[in-house]
Amino acid sequence: MHMINEKCGIAAVYGHKEAANLVYLCLYALQHRGQESAGIASWDGKEIHMVKRMGLVADIFNKETLRKLPGFAAIGHNRYSTTGESTLKNAQPLFVNFKYGELAIAHNGNLVNAQNIRNRLESEGAIFQSTMDTEVIVHLISRAPYDNFKDSLNHALRQIKGAFSLVMLRKDELIAVRDPWGIRPLVLGMLKDSYVIASETCALDLIDATYVRDIKPGEVLSISSKGLESWYPFEEVKQHHCIFEYIYFARPDSVVFGKEVYGIRFNFGRMLARESSCDADTVIPVPDSGIVAALGYAKESGLPFELGLIRNHYVGRTFIEPKDSVRHFGVRVKLNPVKEVLAGKKVVVIDDSIVRGTTSMKIVKMIRSAGAREVHMKISSPPITHSCFYGIDTPTRRELIASSHSVEEICKYITADSLQYLSIEGMLEAAGYSVEDHPFCLACFTGNYPIKA
Amino acid sequence: MHMINEKCGIAAVYGHKEAANLVYLCLYALQHRGQESAGIASWDGKEIHMVKRMGLVADIFNKETLRKLPGFAAIGHNRYSTTGESTLKNAQPLFVNFKYGELAIAHNGNLVNAQNIRNRLESEGAIFQSTMDTEVIVHLISRAPYDNFKDSLNHALRQIKGAFSLVMLRKDELIAVRDPWGIRPLVLGMLKDSYVIASETCALDLIDATYVRDIKPGEVLSISSKGLESWYPFEEVKQHHCIFEYIYFARPDSVVFGKEVYGIRFNFGRMLARESSCDADTVIPVPDSGIVAALGYAKESGLPFELGLIRNHYVGRTFIEPKDSVRHFGVRVKLNPVKEVLAGKKVVVIDDSIVRGTTSMKIVKMIRSAGAREVHMKISSPPITHSCFYGIDTPTRRELIASSHSVEEICKYITADSLQYLSIEGMLEAAGYSVEDHPFCLACFTGNYPIKA
Amino acid sequence: MHMINEKCGIAAVYGHKEAANLVYLCLYALQHRGQESAGIASWDGKEIHMVKRMGLVADIFNKETLRKLPGFAAIGHNRYSTTGESTLKNAQPLFVNFKYGELAIAHNGNLVNAQNIRNRLESEGAIFQSTMDTEVIVHLISRAPYDNFKDSLNHALRQIKGAFSLVMLRKDELIAVRDPWGIRPLVLGMLKDSYVIASETCALDLIDATYVRDIKPGEVLSISSKGLESWYPFEEVKQHHCIFEYIYFARPDSVVFGKEVYGIRFNFGRMLARESSCDADTVIPVPDSGIVAALGYAKESGLPFELGLIRNHYVGRTFIEPKDSVRHFGVRVKLNPVKEVLAGKKVVVIDDSIVRGTTSMKIVKMIRSAGAREVHMKISSPPITHSCFYGIDTPTRRELIASSHSVEEICKYITADSLQYLSIEGMLEAAGYSVEDHPFCLACFTGNYPIKA
Amino acid sequence: MHMINEKCGIAAVYGHKEAANLVYLCLYALQHRGQESAGIASWDGKEIHMVKRMGLVADIFNKETLRKLPGFAAIGHNRYSTTGESTLKNAQPLFVNFKYGELAIAHNGNLVNAQNIRNRLESEGAIFQSTMDTEVIVHLISRAPYDNFKDSLNHALRQIKGAFSLVMLRKDELIAVRDPWGIRPLVLGMLKDSYVIASETCALDLIDATYVRDIKPGEVLSISSKGLESWYPFEEVKQHHCIFEYIYFARPDSVVFGKEVYGIRFNFGRMLARESSCDADTVIPVPDSGIVAALGYAKESGLPFELGLIRNHYVGRTFIEPKDSVRHFGVRVKLNPVKEVLAGKKVVVIDDSIVRGTTSMKIVKMIRSAGAREVHMKISSPPITHSCFYGIDTPTRRELIASSHSVEEICKYITADSLQYLSIEGMLEAAGYSVEDHPFCLACFTGNYPIKA
Repeated sequence: MHMINEKCGIAAVYGHKEAANLVYLCLYALQHRGQESAGIASWDGKEIHMVKRMGLVADIFNKETLRKLPGFAAIGHNRYSTTGESTLKNAQPLFVNFKYGELAIAHNGNLVNAQNIRNRLESEGAIFQSTMDTEVIVHLISRAPYDNFKDSLNHALRQIKGAFSLVMLRKDELIAVRDPWGIRPLVLGMLKDSYVIASETCALDLIDATYVRDIKPGEVLSISSKGLESWYPFEEVKQHHCIFEYIYFARPDSVVFGKEVYGIRFNFGRMLARESSCDADTVIPVPDSGIVAALGYAKESGLPFELGLIRNHYVGRTFIEPKDSVRHFGVRVKLNPVKEVLAGKKVVVIDDSIVRGTTSMKIVKMIRSAGAREVHMKISSPPITHSCFYGIDTPTRRELIASSHSVEEICKYITADSLQYLSIEGMLEAAGYSVEDHPFCLACFTGNYPIKA
Repeated sequence: MHMINEKCGIAAVYGHKEAANLVYLCLYALQHRGQESAGIASWDGKEIHMVKRMGLVADIFNKETLRKLPGFAAIGHNRYSTTGESTLKNAQPLFVNFKYGELAIAHNGNLVNAQNIRNRLESEGAIFQSTMDTEVIVHLISRAPYDNFKDSLNHALRQIKGAFSLVMLRKDELIAVRDPWGIRPLVLGMLKDSYVIASETCALDLIDATYVRDIKPGEVLSISSKGLESWYPFEEVKQHHCIFEYIYFARPDSVVFGKEVYGIRFNFGRMLARESSCDADTVIPVPDSGIVAALGYAKESGLPFELGLIRNHYVGRTFIEPKDSVRHFGVRVKLNPVKEVLAGKKVVVIDDSIVRGTTSMKIVKMIRSAGAREVHMKISSPPITHSCFYGIDTPTRRELIASSHSVEEICKYITADSLQYLSIEGMLEAAGYSVEDHPFCLACFTGNYPIKA
Repeated sequence: MHMINEKCGIAAVYGHKEAANLVYLCLYALQHRGQESAGIASWDGKEIHMVKRMGLVADIFNKETLRKLPGFAAIGHNRYSTTGESTLKNAQPLFVNFKYGELAIAHNGNLVNAQNIRNRLESEGAIFQSTMDTEVIVHLISRAPYDNFKDSLNHALRQIKGAFSLVMLRKDELIAVRDPWGIRPLVLGMLKDSYVIASETCALDLIDATYVRDIKPGEVLSISSKGLESWYPFEEVKQHHCIFEYIYFARPDSVVFGKEVYGIRFNFGRMLARESSCDADTVIPVPDSGIVAALGYAKESGLPFELGLIRNHYVGRTFIEPKDSVRHFGVRVKLNPVKEVLAGKKVVVIDDSIVRGTTSMKIVKMIRSAGAREVHMKISSPPITHSCFYGIDTPTRRELIASSHSVEEICKYITADSLQYLSIEGMLEAAGYSVEDHPFCLACFTGNYPIKA
Repeated sequence: MHMINEKCGIAAVYGHKEAANLVYLCLYALQHRGQESAGIASWDGKEIHMVKRMGLVADIFNKETLRKLPGFAAIGHNRYSTTGESTLKNAQPLFVNFKYGELAIAHNGNLVNAQNIRNRLESEGAIFQSTMDTEVIVHLISRAPYDNFKDSLNHALRQIKGAFSLVMLRKDELIAVRDPWGIRPLVLGMLKDSYVIASETCALDLIDATYVRDIKPGEVLSISSKGLESWYPFEEVKQHHCIFEYIYFARPDSVVFGKEVYGIRFNFGRMLARESSCDADTVIPVPDSGIVAALGYAKESGLPFELGLIRNHYVGRTFIEPKDSVRHFGVRVKLNPVKEVLAGKKVVVIDDSIVRGTTSMKIVKMIRSAGAREVHMKISSPPITHSCFYGIDTPTRRELIASSHSVEEICKYITADSLQYLSIEGMLEAAGYSVEDHPFCLACFTGNYPIKA
């Protein structure tokens, strides 16, 4: 089972004469969802224009590039990738010419049956320009046994399984799709008479668009000069939102799956404090991702919240180390400890998760080297024991330290004085649900994958 | 009196075979001191090499550019500028050929008598390649009535007035200078047998260098194969450290003027709470600069510290707005309010300073639009009533809102429910000093300029 | 009938550890065949690597880009285009993933039935990433009713009609194909044990490879670790080499269709002199394309050959003219007359062809303005009356001045004192053939298209 | 005695609202005089703007860069350099701020006493930003004991010795200067009411400007709103035009030193034929520089002129050769022999000069490898036995093969069957002068340097 992680941000605008400019602003707000490449495709009533490049939105788009994207409808994409396939070839939107004319598509998520479909399509003569899951969707549309786009699209969507929040641009039409499990978020907003689609509400906020509602799990929403039309081509399935959006991925100022991320993330911290209080002098976050949970932890525990690690936000993609350097700069270049806060203290450190454990180890050592007496690591989510196949950047199981080590062993590995994780029950309760009745996919904690290839 | 703001970061390394690479790492850590341009000059025993460009350290330097900077000694500079003179011509280090051979120089601060000296030098036939203050220093060295570098340097240094922390690179010698008032910081560190000079200790931390001591006000430190030599060519004057390093400019994890920035900034917040407590539900910072003071305020006031504004760290230099945009995106693209935190609350907002007032107004309105019931702005420094001529980015007096408006008027302008500043007395006390006996320049709050042109 | 002009250069190397570097050198030598974009794909035994960009070979490829192209086999392409589709999307080689794994293909020529096939393929669900003819070939291979590459390739090749000299790179195999009409040239050479394929022999010369033979019309040549294998999947057809290779397109130092271009082009000039001698003082070429024919003309006519027009070889792609410029710089920036040669003279001007007539008119006026008494234009090929559908850059018929104007009318339009073209008979005789028995396509002069869509 | 070769092209325009655009066009036409870097400075009535970069005019200037160069006056420069100092630091125009405000200067030629003056100026405290001769001129102006620009300029000009054609731009004034020896060319033209200055008339031709006259040796020409003013600040000296402008450097379509280059270069070839006729079948040039002389040789000798070597004009700056390449590509990448022309023939090859001899050797071998029976090398100038100190790119004497080898020895070294040079007498006669009475500098042939440092 292959896994190309597609932790991405998508956005779309319909009905605004500066559609591409608004999409660019949305991608700006969604930059945290992917920094590898970005692209925008626009429809000017006659043809699709596209700009996509490696790098950040702020570096790719300027007056000149936006001028190349005329039209009243546009879609955009920020791509994140941890695989070796970090090439422009895999940047999105994907553009094709086919029987239904020109089509651009942007995809957040990844499919579990993409490789199977791809093998079948290839055996039938299909030709691929990239290694992206997304490309199979277009092939399925093109080969569907119908002669109109809508039926073909439905036919294609019914065949794919996995996580997919999609926006598509074609002749006079913008289409948004969300998989029936509702794994990745996708919201609809309005800016005066224009429609806006985005991965998170923080994108709507930036352009002053009003949040209207989530695109529903299983919904296909078409926006065209005829107005909005929705349909649900999928069989009904139980919802499985990705809880990692709350733990780490979404921006805290966004509303995701109908709830404010900040509040839930804060509650994770509170619950963590209730589950794993300890004798300590101060609570510090691993910035920036641990800050909100650490605030919750501090509130609940009564311990003071402090900034014991300072983050350098100017860090670029690569970093040239001296050849004879005795140590690896990886973490140090991003984080620096504050002796004033840490020296002589018993420190609780809040992070959102532990993947391989190496970063946590470096952080613990860094804090201790700044004079901390004790370092207690608290994680605002349960141990990740299984890989994600729906688009979160988790490595293969073997690399996940919690897949083969007990919490005690991990604690020893990261050289902390103690280590606690938030329990699955606590996490669900903090999010406002019970173990018995919740809308989340917990596969990375339990191995119970809701969608089978 | 002209004012080119030179709020910059400088670094230097002597005695390491990868000197330029270490300087690059230091500039990385000092990126917050200037994002307009960066440059490194290295000395390979025969000649000086130099690379300088517009942009961020991470974008300018890579394996290829660092390969062009061989040698065991190097100096570097991050430039910040708010003036129109944002050109490569004014990037540093400045390089010249003159009677003492090749020289590269990097300068943090600015001089109050540069224009006077420049006028005199021009009338005597001197030729300038830039509009930087720094260039007059080299001319003064070159025209000094001595036939050796050291005497000429001393002669030159005695003529310049203002803020200057300098590093210079010439034939086999690295020289660091700090003005006798000690306005800008400059520290000495060691990495095994190599010497490191930097604006702040966070640069030493990144490369694992040990902090040795501050370059003293009025000290000239020469580092060469003969070892270290220090001398003090200036008349003795009272020290006047720039207190804005504590308020805003230095990174909180740095040690500046012998004290940890974090602790003092935290105390500013505590003192602010003592001076201006109010009935409120929550304390939020304007991130990132207000965070540490807000933590101090929360601690002292007992109010909960929360993140009511989320900062987007991916913001680039320019930002393309839709042409028919009704509002200016300036602040919104950087900050977004969190409704969960703010809705229905009486909010205390902590910021480090108010300059023109426009940004504060936008922040207040943003917080209110997220549902806050009351917005109480608290500033962790006194009102800025006078321009700085020593290198802080303050605009001309007329533009400083506090130069012509009372606190009450400013409060009204920024549409806050209340506005309080930290008092001068409180600020000094929080920093561990009294009004009668302190080592700071307070000119921007009082108009008492310690150095006259 | 669509017409995307694909006047290009292709090259390939098999069995050399620096295959991409040799292909790069070949493209260098073939730069005259296309300056819009260039690309190289290499096979390293495991996968295909590719670099393609807009611009000249010398600007695209350097040590760094060549390092990204490891392997012992490589193909490359220089693209020329006069259509609006000048985008990277249409640069070659074209790369795909499909049932036979990875494939890269480079194509010189263009197909007459590409659009028909494309329409059919699209209706069957095929998806296209470009608007290049070349892409249909790969689709035909992929959809052929066979389960092996060779049969599928043959099946595909039999369906396409038009001009195609192809090189393809796949798993351990380099394949060269030439259409059965032999329209575009393609030669095989050897460099020690390595094989080299190129559009012209000048590419072999540069890398010191020995010319072995032409790839034969209708031949498919496979080069792999098993050695060379040739087969001929096409029905036999009469050969129709493009005579414009001799007239203008090939470099004079190349051997094309088994004969040296220089000699034939020189003979065109001699024959032109025989057919259209006139009373004149001097013969000048329109440089560079008219030089060799002008030498032949001078030789036969006994008139002195001189350089009356000097060409500026530094001309770039675009050229910024003053806004209020009274005249268009188009021709002037490339050519400047030499008064010394022209003043007071009766001048014979030799050019290879006239397309729209506007350039010829500017040249005649330029020569006259330099003082020439008479300007006699002589064209070393017959009037172009019909568009080419096989890959020569001729515009639509309506734009071809000779399609609707007599020689006399053209003469008047270009303001020459006289105008003569080489006759078809003379051209064929000069090339060593008769009107009755020759191997050329003359469609652009006669309208007799040898290949029907 | 140092020697930085400054074989450059300069241009200037005064009184045209698109001055920079016209200068850009002039630099285009003068690209053959220098391909290393180019720059333009413009004066908009308030300040000087400047763009300069490494590379070709066509690559550096586009709409965007020209938009940065507003104003009605501009100067420009193409730089050629064979020294190691190929950096942007040495690109021109040179810009300074000094007592007379802003000044930009562009310089063709080089000074023989620059280093002496520089040493003196440095000892007096002058500071240099480059290693260009040009910079000392500005220092001399700045330090002249006058308080007005004109007297200071005259004072400076009287101190410098060597070759200098200069254009300067300052407050409302364009100044052109030519050294009293008249070594390098400089012409004045008019385009309606605007004035144009350029190194060669081909620049005037491109923009349709009329040639008015040469800037006279020793003339200073000021163009301002007050009109034209000329003066002659130098002591009278004998003229010494660089004869290499006729031999190789100027474009054949230019008028230089009052005569058409084409005619003189053609006469060099005729005279060479008279002095060194030989039994041969054909005459071929080394393109492009040998073409005109070869035409003259062919005319006089009665031998046919043919193109035996084809030049690839797409050659870039660098060229990546395979690592295990047995031979150096240096010459081959530029030139390829035509077997049809050469096989079995006795070939006369015309080149303009021989410097080190290595290129000539490669050319002879290349021609022989194409089947030539005999190769007779004829050089259209006398043997270069001495270095040039006035701006021609000749290497140090030791590297000049003719400084230490007889013609017979050189012939053997380059493996030719025979070798003849044009005699000094023949060269002068061909140019229309006698040995006794001519206006040329012949130092590179005779060692009689007209200007002493």
